[in-house]
Amino acid sequence: MKHLPINSERLWDSLCEMARFGATAKGGVHRLALSPPDLAARAHFAALCEQAGLALRSDEYGNMFARREGADPSLPPVLFGSHLDSQPNGGRYDGALGVMAGLEVMRSLNDHHVVTQAPVELVNWTDEEGARFGKALLGSGLWAGVHPPAATLARCDAEGITLGQALAAARGATPGTPFAGAAYFELHIEQGVMLERAHLPLGIVTFCQAQVWYDVVALGQAAHAGTTPPAFRHDALLCAARVIDLVDRMMRARGEDGRGTVGRLVVIPNSSNVIPGEVRFSVEFRHPSDAELSRIKAQFPREAGFIARDCEVALAISEIFTLPATPFDPGLLAMMRTAADDLGLGHRDIISGGGHDSIYAAHHMKAAMIFIPCKDGKSHCEEESIEPGDAAAGTALLYEAVKRTAG
Amino acid sequence: MKHLPINSERLWDSLCEMARFGATAKGGVHRLALSPPDLAARAHFAALCEQAGLALRSDEYGNMFARREGADPSLPPVLFGSHLDSQPNGGRYDGALGVMAGLEVMRSLNDHHVVTQAPVELVNWTDEEGARFGKALLGSGLWAGVHPPAATLARCDAEGITLGQALAAARGATPGTPFAGAAYFELHIEQGVMLERAHLPLGIVTFCQAQVWYDVVALGQAAHAGTTPPAFRHDALLCAARVIDLVDRMMRARGEDGRGTVGRLVVIPNSSNVIPGEVRFSVEFRHPSDAELSRIKAQFPREAGFIARDCEVALAISEIFTLPATPFDPGLLAMMRTAADDLGLGHRDIISGGGHDSIYAAHHMKAAMIFIPCKDGKSHCEEESIEPGDAAAGTALLYEAVKRTAG
Repeated sequence: MKHLPINSERLWDSLCEMARFGATAKGGVHRLALSPPDLAARAHFAALCEQAGLALRSDEYGNMFARREGADPSLPPVLFGSHLDSQPNGGRYDGALGVMAGLEVMRSLNDHHVVTQAPVELVNWTDEEGARFGKALLGSGLWAGVHPPAATLARCDAEGITLGQALAAARGATPGTPFAGAAYFELHIEQGVMLERAHLPLGIVTFCQAQVWYDVVALGQAAHAGTTPPAFRHDALLCAARVIDLVDRMMRARGEDGRGTVGRLVVIPNSSNVIPGEVRFSVEFRHPSDAELSRIKAQFPREAGFIARDCEVALAISEIFTLPATPFDPGLLAMMRTAADDLGLGHRDIISGGGHDSIYAAHHMKAAMIFIPCKDGKSHCEEESIEPGDAAAGTALLYEAVKRTAG
Repeated sequence: MKHLPINSERLWDSLCEMARFGATAKGGVHRLALSPPDLAARAHFAALCEQAGLALRSDEYGNMFARREGADPSLPPVLFGSHLDSQPNGGRYDGALGVMAGLEVMRSLNDHHVVTQAPVELVNWTDEEGARFGKALLGSGLWAGVHPPAATLARCDAEGITLGQALAAARGATPGTPFAGAAYFELHIEQGVMLERAHLPLGIVTFCQAQVWYDVVALGQAAHAGTTPPAFRHDALLCAARVIDLVDRMMRARGEDGRGTVGRLVVIPNSSNVIPGEVRFSVEFRHPSDAELSRIKAQFPREAGFIARDCEVALAISEIFTLPATPFDPGLLAMMRTAADDLGLGHRDIISGGGHDSIYAAHHMKAAMIFIPCKDGKSHCEEESIEPGDAAAGTALLYEAVKRTAG
């Protein structure tokens, strides 16, 4: 490994500092989008951008853009960034790495007195996780014009607060309309085990897999657990349990590329001796192939319907969104492979299992992503962990990618 | 049907009045034990007892005893009553019927200027439902010396409030120690369909079935739903789902007498794109036969353990309590059959599928129960409904049972 063009210690310190916002006892962060810890993290980020001499603006969806001017301000900017919000009791690096690495790129450009031709802009997208309002990639999707604004702003969190209301504290003056950029780069933890197993610090992400999310409501009949005989039961939780098993079977039938998960489930009335009358839960499937995802989308409602009929429970399945598989820009990928080689850093091509704001950025400009390993592939949990050396390697490649693209 | 010895309209009015406390939009009540609506209901009940000339005392567990003195105050009292707390979004009559019918018995004894030999006492037991602190028959079980006081008072509700803390507003000066009574009677809705199908207003309850309750915790590993391949998953919700299916299969294998229910389930962290790391849920089984319940208690942990091993999830199963099948007093049952015949009211013998405070009262005195039908057998839900005529029939039999026993 050659001498890196960034300051590894400063990067690591800034990551540790950011992890204080919403810190949990077990070393993770609980920083739901637009919650008090997220708002504090945004204010801290804004102050750091100002210290680095960046011009900060926020759009109407709370997306933050910190601009370093280029020699030719009229050129489309090179964008890079990620998100500061987290999962409930999530990890310190999912999202925060990409933002703080982006800040380190800006600081290093300053250190080296680099003047790029095109302007460069560091982005913090609002609510990437989807944990609070039940729909992921909210800020980038609104910006890209993918999510319908009125319906999206009306989405409620568990306390009945709408996204529109929550945005009051973070909303900026800039319209949330897409603009053309020269490129979008995002550094992120892999959230899987491929790089760790290959003992490589860098993954060049060739594409994001396709996914579909559903909201499901099973409606049975609440009744006394002690007196209601088997034949008279309409148990919404039994129906949900069998659908959970179906999702798992459908995933495993697709081999190691299959993904199928029920992550959220709420029982009503949720009392030990009441047969559940209603269960609300999420279902999501992912697959590298759009064609396979289409087959999943045809199969799931049909087979879940058979289960519901068998349980004598009504099942309502609403699709929240489908993301097609998103290939990244071949030219950018080739440039990044060369840059990694120039830096003397090991790398391999990799597929992203997660959804990222890059997917929506890619609607309006060329895009590409860089992954670094995370310990045991664990993410969306407090145990999420990375090595400082890998963070530095990823940030160095991000620096090179931005510098080479901005000219 | 002959002229009844009670005032049916006054009874019905008092039931409607009580249903105002914790009333829900859909016609049920949400009156968790010792919550503000339950405390208001208790205050209302206390005022009505005072108006009826009864001497009210509460014990250290909040159990309320309203006494009408007998000709010989030294005789053991005849007790009767039920509970005013409800399930979350529960029904208007589960518990409240027995208490308000008891009040009507007292009022009718006054109307007829009856002087009983033994004193008679109307009881409102604290937290029969077990919905708030996760353990049923709390007040009667503490009074009977069945529940260990320290551990029981330390049980927490969903907000972390202990039973001991919640009792502060309802605790009385009387020690919560059991005393001998001449008999205990309880009128309750059937919470099943037998009486309704038989077109009979009265069930003479011969015994309560055996039951066992468990708290179960499935501990897996929270991980990213999009990136974690099937082989690397430790999905606590998948494990719970298969245990729910096991409980249902075990119930159905016992035919129409089988009962097995998972009524309460909480997912952690409960986010759409996180594989659940932890799931906490209740499991309960009931059966008329103690021997069959013993077999269930041997089978369940073993088979659930196989599921957990298969899912690579750790499963902790804690038994909360076992209630043996409780037969009621044959002499009281015979007396009640005669009384029902004397009143010209149709009746049949019946088994109780639910647990009732009578079970613990029966530890210290002879006990018996009366059931009346409820519409479609629905209970523990807002649709719970009864006919005024059936309420009057049940109350008339309760009146006769109390009067004949108190002499």
